[in-house]
Amino acid sequence: MNTPNDTIVAPATAVGGAIAVVRMSGPSALAICDTVFSGARRAGEAAGYTVLYGTIADGARVLDDVLVTVFRAPHSYTGEDAVEISCHGSRYIVRELLALLVRRGARMATPGEFTSRAFLGGKLDLSQAEAVADLIASGSRAAHTLATDQMRGGYSAELETLRGELLRLASLLELELDFGEEEVEFADRTELRAAMERIGAKIDRLIDSFALGNAIKEGVAVAIVGRPNVGKSTLLNRLLNEERALVSEIPGTTRDPIEATLNLDGILYRFIDTAGLRTTDDTVERMGIERAYASVARAQIVLQVFDAADPAIEPLDLRPDQCRILIANKIDRMDPAAAPVSLPDGALPLSAREGRGMEPLLERLRAAVDASALDDGRTIVSNSRHYEALHHARTALDDALGGLETLPSDLLGEEIRQAIFHLGTITGEITTDEVLGQIFSKFCIGK
Amino acid sequence: MNTPNDTIVAPATAVGGAIAVVRMSGPSALAICDTVFSGARRAGEAAGYTVLYGTIADGARVLDDVLVTVFRAPHSYTGEDAVEISCHGSRYIVRELLALLVRRGARMATPGEFTSRAFLGGKLDLSQAEAVADLIASGSRAAHTLATDQMRGGYSAELETLRGELLRLASLLELELDFGEEEVEFADRTELRAAMERIGAKIDRLIDSFALGNAIKEGVAVAIVGRPNVGKSTLLNRLLNEERALVSEIPGTTRDPIEATLNLDGILYRFIDTAGLRTTDDTVERMGIERAYASVARAQIVLQVFDAADPAIEPLDLRPDQCRILIANKIDRMDPAAAPVSLPDGALPLSAREGRGMEPLLERLRAAVDASALDDGRTIVSNSRHYEALHHARTALDDALGGLETLPSDLLGEEIRQAIFHLGTITGEITTDEVLGQIFSKFCIGK
Repeated sequence: MNTPNDTIVAPATAVGGAIAVVRMSGPSALAICDTVFSGARRAGEAAGYTVLYGTIADGARVLDDVLVTVFRAPHSYTGEDAVEISCHGSRYIVRELLALLVRRGARMATPGEFTSRAFLGGKLDLSQAEAVADLIASGSRAAHTLATDQMRGGYSAELETLRGELLRLASLLELELDFGEEEVEFADRTELRAAMERIGAKIDRLIDSFALGNAIKEGVAVAIVGRPNVGKSTLLNRLLNEERALVSEIPGTTRDPIEATLNLDGILYRFIDTAGLRTTDDTVERMGIERAYASVARAQIVLQVFDAADPAIEPLDLRPDQCRILIANKIDRMDPAAAPVSLPDGALPLSAREGRGMEPLLERLRAAVDASALDDGRTIVSNSRHYEALHHARTALDDALGGLETLPSDLLGEEIRQAIFHLGTITGEITTDEVLGQIFSKFCIGK
Repeated sequence: MNTPNDTIVAPATAVGGAIAVVRMSGPSALAICDTVFSGARRAGEAAGYTVLYGTIADGARVLDDVLVTVFRAPHSYTGEDAVEISCHGSRYIVRELLALLVRRGARMATPGEFTSRAFLGGKLDLSQAEAVADLIASGSRAAHTLATDQMRGGYSAELETLRGELLRLASLLELELDFGEEEVEFADRTELRAAMERIGAKIDRLIDSFALGNAIKEGVAVAIVGRPNVGKSTLLNRLLNEERALVSEIPGTTRDPIEATLNLDGILYRFIDTAGLRTTDDTVERMGIERAYASVARAQIVLQVFDAADPAIEPLDLRPDQCRILIANKIDRMDPAAAPVSLPDGALPLSAREGRGMEPLLERLRAAVDASALDDGRTIVSNSRHYEALHHARTALDDALGGLETLPSDLLGEEIRQAIFHLGTITGEITTDEVLGQIFSKFCIGK
C-alpha cells in the first residue's frame, strides 16, 4: 500500500442537473488542470479552499466556462492535491472534459478510488469509508443517522476501546511469559475471566444490534398474507396513502417511481410481494406457493389479513424473531344488526377500504421494531462484513475463555490476539488488498 | 422587473453521484446558510470565491459534512450573494437540506430562476441565457459549439451590430423630420435603399442558417425506407456499429441506453422509426402507412433501401429540401456469375450484413448536411424564437423597402423601428414577463 503517484479523475455528480462536478486528485492534479484552464489565476498558484472562475479549452477550442475549486494536500478528501471542476451539466461537456484531462495525463478513477485513497492516506478508517457509501445510499432518517455516526467516527471509537481492552489483556499475558509463571502472576485468572466476559458481552451487544442495523439499512421486510379477496392490495395502498399524508414533499426534488415502501418515524418498511400466496387453494401452481412462502420466510413482520366476517386464520410457520400482526379487514361490510363475531386475540379490526383502524396498525408496525438503541445513541452494527468480523472475534474470545484454566499463557494470548485481529479488520488496522478491492468496488465512480 | 428581495434554493445537480450540490441565491443567502452551517469560519465572514469545510446541522442533529462555496454580489452567477453547498450525493440528505433551508427562510426556486435572476441583474442577455439551457442539453460537438458561441456573446454581438446599423438609419430619417425634407436630405434614398438591402441580406443569411442550426440542435432526421426484408434494420444496426468503432468511449461515464443516433464529425443524425412503411402491400393498416409517410415527411435525409438483385424503387414524394440516398443492399447475395444488374443512377451498392460499402454511405450522409458555416465560424441561428423574430424583422424591413419612394420619412422610420424592436426581442432589450416566463419555464430546476 504505497502512496499513489498517479492522478485520477472522474465525474463526481450524476449528469442531468444544471451543473456537473468533475473531480481530480493526485500529485499532478493542479498541473494537469492548468494545462486546460485559463482564469485570472492558475490553479497551481491558488491557495487551498479557493475557487477560480475561468475557461476550459482544448487548444483554441473553448469547452466551457467553469469554476475550479483548489485543494492542497493534506487538506482534501483524499489527502492529496485535488481540484473539483464545476461545469455546465451537459453529458457532452463532462465526457469531453474527462477525455481532455485523460489526454493531459490523468487516469480514469476506478469505483471508490477517491475514498480508497482517503483510507490509504489515513484520512478515514475503513468503517468510516464504508459509511460514506452507506450515507450516499441512505434513504431514511434512521439509515442516515447510522451512516453519519459511523462516518464521523463514533463507531470506530467504540471498537477501538474494545480492541484496547483486549490488547491490555494480551500484553499482561505476554508479560507473564517474559517473567515466567512461577515468578509473577500479573493476570489473576478470575479477574482475567471477568474482563474477558465483560468484553464478550459488549461484542454480543454489537452482534445483537445487527438485527436492527440491518433492518434500518435494508428496510424492515413486511409480508402481507391472506386468502384471495381479503383486501391485501387495498390494505397496502391504504398504508402507502397514509404515508403520503404524513410526508410533506418538496416539489421537484424527486422523480423516482414510488416503491412499495413506508417510512414510519424515519424507519423504512419494505413490502414484499406475496400476491401468489393462496394456502387454501389446491389448484394453484406449486412454484407460486413456494415463492410466497419464501417471501414470508424473508419477512420480519407478517401482516396476516382475513375477512372480519370469516375469521379463519391459516396456520403460518413463523420463526420466533418474526412478528405476526393479525388484521380483521372489511369491518365496513359487517351487518351491525348481526350477532358480533368474536375475533382472535390481538387481531386489529379495520377497514382498508374506508381507512378505519389504520392508526393502531401503524402503532403495531412501529412497535414491532425496537429502535430504542437508535434513540439512545447506542452503537448499531449495520454492515454484514462487520457483523461477521464480530462473530469471528467472539468465537476467538470463547476459545480463550474455554481454555482459561488449561491453556498456557502463550496460547491464551494467541486466542486473544485473534479476537483483536478480527476487530481490527473492521476499521482496517488489518486489511488486505483483496478485502479493500471488494469494499471499494461497490462504490460509485467519482467517490 | 424589480430586483428580487427573496432568497431562492434548489438542487443544482442530479442526485445519483458521489456528491450533490445545492445552490442558494439572494440577499439572505449567506445569513440563512449560517443558521445551519458550522465551520472554522461563518459564510457571512468569508470572502467571495472561498470554500468552507464544516457541518450542516438542524439544532443538535447533524445532517452532513459539507463544503460551502461563498459568492458575494455581484461576483456570482446570479449577481446576488450566493452559496453552493456540496454534500454527499444522497437523495435523503438533499431533500432534508432543502427542507431545512426552506424552514430557515429560503424559497424553492422555480425552473430557470437562477438564470432568470442573472438576466434581470444584467449578467447575461436573453440569448445568452437561452444558450445556457442549450449548452446543458447539447449532445454533440456541433450543438455544443453553437451553444458555447451564443453563451459567450458572439451571437449577441452580431445582432447588436445589425440593430446599430438600423438605429443609424432610423436616426437619419428622424433628423430629416426635424429639419424638414425640403431643407436637407440627410438620407439619400438610393443610399438608404442600399443600406437597407445590405442589412436585409444579413438578416436573410441568419434566417437561412436556421436550417443548419435546427439540424444541429435537434439532430438531422433520417428515415430509412424500403420494402420489407430489404435489410433496413440490418443497415441501421450496421450504421450504429460504425459509430461505436469511430467513437472512443470512456468507461463509466454514461449508463444511458443508446438511442438510434449516429454522430458523424460532431453532427448528430437521428433515425426515425419507419418500420410501418410497406408501400407495395395493400393489406397493411392504413394508420401504419400514414405514420410511416409522416416520418418520411419529417426527415431531412431519406435512405431508400432496395435489394440489389431486384432494383425496383418505390416512388417517393419528397420536397426539394429533402435529400434522398438510394441504397442497393445485399450485394453479398448476388451471384458473381450472373449477368450484372444495372443499378439506378447514384445508387450505392453495399452489404449491410457484411459491412461492405459503408464508407461511401457515411460520406453521403456527411455531404447531405452543409456544415461549412459552422467550420467558418459564421453565426448560426438554432433557436426557433430567434428565427421567428428575424422573420418579423425582415418583414418590417421589406415593408420599409416597399414604401421607400412613397412613404413619408416618419412612417419609414416607424417601419425600421419595428425591425429594430424585433431584433431587440432576441437579446432581451425588449421583453415581457410573459416571454421571460415561457423561456425560463423550460429550464431545469437549479439552473
